[in-house]
Amino acid sequence: MTSQTLNTGSPMPMLGLGTWKIDKLHCADVIVAAGKAGYRHFDCACDYGNEIEVGQGIQQIINEGIATREELWITSKLWNTYHAKEHVRPACEKTLSDLGLDYVDLYLVHFPIALKFVAFEDRYPPEWVHDPKAEKPGLVTEPVPIRETWTAMESLVDAGLTKNIGICNFGVSLIRDLLSYAKIRPSVLQVELHPRLAQEKLLRFCAQENIAVTAFSSFGPSSYYQLGMADESESLIDHEIVQGIAHETEKTPGQVLLRWAVQRGTIVIPKASSEQHLQENSAIFDFDLTKDQMTRLSALNQNRRFNDPGDFCEAAFNTFFPIYE
Amino acid sequence: MTSQTLNTGSPMPMLGLGTWKIDKLHCADVIVAAGKAGYRHFDCACDYGNEIEVGQGIQQIINEGIATREELWITSKLWNTYHAKEHVRPACEKTLSDLGLDYVDLYLVHFPIALKFVAFEDRYPPEWVHDPKAEKPGLVTEPVPIRETWTAMESLVDAGLTKNIGICNFGVSLIRDLLSYAKIRPSVLQVELHPRLAQEKLLRFCAQENIAVTAFSSFGPSSYYQLGMADESESLIDHEIVQGIAHETEKTPGQVLLRWAVQRGTIVIPKASSEQHLQENSAIFDFDLTKDQMTRLSALNQNRRFNDPGDFCEAAFNTFFPIYE
Repeated sequence: MTSQTLNTGSPMPMLGLGTWKIDKLHCADVIVAAGKAGYRHFDCACDYGNEIEVGQGIQQIINEGIATREELWITSKLWNTYHAKEHVRPACEKTLSDLGLDYVDLYLVHFPIALKFVAFEDRYPPEWVHDPKAEKPGLVTEPVPIRETWTAMESLVDAGLTKNIGICNFGVSLIRDLLSYAKIRPSVLQVELHPRLAQEKLLRFCAQENIAVTAFSSFGPSSYYQLGMADESESLIDHEIVQGIAHETEKTPGQVLLRWAVQRGTIVIPKASSEQHLQENSAIFDFDLTKDQMTRLSALNQNRRFNDPGDFCEAAFNTFFPIYE
Repeated sequence: MTSQTLNTGSPMPMLGLGTWKIDKLHCADVIVAAGKAGYRHFDCACDYGNEIEVGQGIQQIINEGIATREELWITSKLWNTYHAKEHVRPACEKTLSDLGLDYVDLYLVHFPIALKFVAFEDRYPPEWVHDPKAEKPGLVTEPVPIRETWTAMESLVDAGLTKNIGICNFGVSLIRDLLSYAKIRPSVLQVELHPRLAQEKLLRFCAQENIAVTAFSSFGPSSYYQLGMADESESLIDHEIVQGIAHETEKTPGQVLLRWAVQRGTIVIPKASSEQHLQENSAIFDFDLTKDQMTRLSALNQNRRFNDPGDFCEAAFNTFFPIYE
């Protein structure tokens, strides 16, 4: 599969399997099936709560000779409760231990949000709320400068625990500030991107700064219906423009949305749990969208963000916590 | 006039005179006329290029006994070229010298943008471009962390050169990072705000963090037509909703827009050059908008920003420089 060379020289596969919300019960099997279907890139996170099972799948891929460790690309993410300098390395080591790996290829700061530390033995993954048993559970923040976290992230590279470091859900001004002091620049920014949130200026900025971009939620709202963060009327998969281009290209709407993303130069990490979906999502390198088709998709932009802590933290955790305003 | 108590205890007048684009030729006279019309708050900046003339007006206000220094509120702003720690104090002192003052009441970081230093004797104010005579003049940035600038701003308070410090054009994540290390928290955030850019989450965040908000460009696009950054069809003053509420309240559209702002708790700094406009803009504390009128105005929100360096730096200075993405 196609890859993109990062600013460190590492070639990162343009397609990965997103592991958010893959159920633990069949997670290892899905990882192995993905490996058999040609996937070499797995996008993980402490917060997804399934790194042990993902790790079992990865071990099986290696043990069965489907791929070597060197042929795989494993991304994981530092959770919000581990931003203080003394917690960054233990958090990364815990992820490595769960995944059964000596290093990850990319380790990302999951959010520009520092929450109060929760010990591994108290709750893992700790999620958003400090004490779920509190009368009114809410976010408890911790004043950790991003620079402190980033310096600790840089030490992970020096220690060989990750090959690359990067960030998620950062905006341009925060990135620019980080670049002013970074000894190791971020290789990758992972953000929500789809035709309803095309973020063309952000992509242009990242291209200018030589930061690769991974798009999450390429299908738009579909991951957010059950969480009450999107309405099915907002579906991109069912949108007539997407359906029309699927018809024109004889591809599925999902393939059209992924192709739009990779053709813009962004890396994609769709989730899939069935063999059919794994194969469908990976068959996006054998066709091109025309300039007109790309333009029609990009014209759907409404700056509509589905994954916004400013909204969901208030609904779910009694805490108003905007990060994109 | 009404004032708002900042997190330092300072009472800041809810209405000030904005001095951006007040022509040097009659600037001192406008300041004096404003003083006679009851204005006690003047919003200045190095970048506006008229601080000497504003200062002449202020001196006349004091000399003529219209108001004492203690009754006045003077804001100024650190320009982008002075973010490095060794330039912050000289920049503030230059502003104080131009204004003829020993201290300002509020000193703001004008943008979260650090540009390469330009010496006072080479060009003052230095504006956006490092060398205007270059074949292709463009922005030249300097990697100065915001923390370095903020620490130097804090020293200005310690040195008595300003009573309060704050920021302009910062988003929530950048503010949150700043709050994680600030020894002196910002008292004020100054941002573009009008019914087309209502920024309700940003205001709510600032209220939560006890940061007062000053709205600039309360009339929306009107300052930006000549600069080619807005189209007259986007006028708020001429919008039927604004006109309708002006009719209902027997006020002018401008007064309605300013009243909407102060009723949301934001400080306003409209520019005016004629006595009539000075008086019109200040007559906004003797009426209330109804809840319904407030709602109809807020419903005009389109997240439409007119003052966006991401756009104008490219058009004017050959440099793509987004800050709000």
